[in-house]
Amino acid sequence: LSNAIRIAIDVMGGDYGPQVTVPAALQIASEVSAIELILVGDLAQIDSLLKSAPSGISHKVSTHAATQVVYMDEKPSSALRSKRDSSIHVAMQLVREGAAHAVVSAGNSGAVMAIGRHILKMLPGIDRPAMCAQIPDRHSHCYVLDLGANIDCSSEQLYQYAIMGSVVATAVDKIASPRVGLLNIGEEDIKGNEQIKLAARLLEENKRINYIGYIEADKIYEHAADVVVCDGFVGNTVLKASEGVARLIENKIKDIFSESLYGRVIGVFALPLLRKICTQIDPGKLNGASLLGLQGCVIKSHGGADLASFASAIRMAHAEAYKDVPQLINQQLAIMHH
Amino acid sequence: LSNAIRIAIDVMGGDYGPQVTVPAALQIASEVSAIELILVGDLAQIDSLLKSAPSGISHKVSTHAATQVVYMDEKPSSALRSKRDSSIHVAMQLVREGAAHAVVSAGNSGAVMAIGRHILKMLPGIDRPAMCAQIPDRHSHCYVLDLGANIDCSSEQLYQYAIMGSVVATAVDKIASPRVGLLNIGEEDIKGNEQIKLAARLLEENKRINYIGYIEADKIYEHAADVVVCDGFVGNTVLKASEGVARLIENKIKDIFSESLYGRVIGVFALPLLRKICTQIDPGKLNGASLLGLQGCVIKSHGGADLASFASAIRMAHAEAYKDVPQLINQQLAIMHH
Repeated sequence: LSNAIRIAIDVMGGDYGPQVTVPAALQIASEVSAIELILVGDLAQIDSLLKSAPSGISHKVSTHAATQVVYMDEKPSSALRSKRDSSIHVAMQLVREGAAHAVVSAGNSGAVMAIGRHILKMLPGIDRPAMCAQIPDRHSHCYVLDLGANIDCSSEQLYQYAIMGSVVATAVDKIASPRVGLLNIGEEDIKGNEQIKLAARLLEENKRINYIGYIEADKIYEHAADVVVCDGFVGNTVLKASEGVARLIENKIKDIFSESLYGRVIGVFALPLLRKICTQIDPGKLNGASLLGLQGCVIKSHGGADLASFASAIRMAHAEAYKDVPQLINQQLAIMHH
Repeated sequence: LSNAIRIAIDVMGGDYGPQVTVPAALQIASEVSAIELILVGDLAQIDSLLKSAPSGISHKVSTHAATQVVYMDEKPSSALRSKRDSSIHVAMQLVREGAAHAVVSAGNSGAVMAIGRHILKMLPGIDRPAMCAQIPDRHSHCYVLDLGANIDCSSEQLYQYAIMGSVVATAVDKIASPRVGLLNIGEEDIKGNEQIKLAARLLEENKRINYIGYIEADKIYEHAADVVVCDGFVGNTVLKASEGVARLIENKIKDIFSESLYGRVIGVFALPLLRKICTQIDPGKLNGASLLGLQGCVIKSHGGADLASFASAIRMAHAEAYKDVPQLINQQLAIMHH
């Protein structure tokens, strides 16, 4: 088992806590061979849920006590200072000590970021962590970052995002030379603010990044790039607007197949097919954002994740830890600065 | 006919020019009673298209020569300087002289804005025009501004957008006290950059605006506000991301109803119903953005508008000119500064 990827799971995080996170971990333990999951949190709750664990996976699952919980509405700075034994804190420490290769948490985003930064530290040359996730597109998906960790970004930070996103797309999706675009409101050189224009110049000069220029937000969904870089305010807004439109369409579809007898009859056959699409593409149902730039793999799951969603966040942690993404980013930065 | 609303149509603008703009104008002339449309552009082209005009509307349609055309990729500043007889320029002058109450153009956005500003001038107290359009939501629509006229906005500008959007929602949709939200990436007070936080304080202090706080982009589609205010970079990105998701879903729906025999059979009945939804809600198919803050009504149509879309831009111009939206904004600003 020495080659297994070890993942620390903050079981207390998220809207449903251990009820969702523990069964999701058990599912992944059954599914993935060389993996070990360390369930971090309240041992009484964890142990009672482990009673119903399927046989044959007990060697892949262990527990680690954490007596405190960071609440979803708690201030990140106070969670960091006053809850040194929170499940987020303890899980991060397991990574720092080398006992785990990655952390997965559905907890308070700000706290995950603050505690991650405090315990794991940033990679040299990276200012702040960026949140990166796969957005589904026409053919597969596109990595978009930052999704809300930093609302104002310098050109240097946008440039760092491009490097980190590029490393992830290569490591996880085996894309040799990922196409990197800068999100802008037009494709012409004159568009955008000063940070974006300067980031474009930095990217044009770097021959190790396959920079393809400015990209408008609608093109994300056409697979026009493998990585799209933007500041956290814009990235978060893209994600939310996309969720909103997807939900609006889902609701309109339900309406149209219920408002007439004809519609209801067709709906019996059409809705099951359509439901499949909504699940495929609703960016809100996608799960797992990587916090890139830290000296360790940290995956943030949606707070409202269900079992399947939380399991996909664990899978993402496995993929990134297996490739040691933080180390790959570090190498790329070292090469570029020499 | 002295009470008719007179609208100057830049017939040369847009991807299809007079082929689309002239028939759209003729349709509106047939449909709306107290209206006069002044077709501005190349008279030879206009006259040949007018030959097929239905009878009984000739008194509602007149022509006005403009010998130059601003191309879609032309620099706004050079179009303003070197093409004083462009159809955009001439149409704006008709409004300034009082010969028309509004302009509709599907031409180069930057040129429409630059020429509009130069000829019509800004309302006192407004720094720059903002682009405002209706975004479809679950129940009706929401006015969002700015959609791309200004990429960096001060808190004062965001505050001006709130006033202008509020006036439009009242004038056009008869909403007595429109709910105004500030777009942000969270609803808590601590979220957002300094401009947004300061704009929130300005709005809280103004008792004439029904400010409801921060709004996340997904809530736009749930009718959580009547007016949503943001900077032009963010607004444009929301619009584009929404278009992208709507198109992605449209394509996925087509795929699913063509990839199996079962799907194809269901599709025969389901697709016509679904097509209706896509037309209703694709923000890219919505047409007509108002340039607010000018001393005159200016409506910008999508460049790629078809006959139906261009006609809806003319309808929007009619609605705003009928209520004299610029004058209403001016009154509101005057009251607030006293």
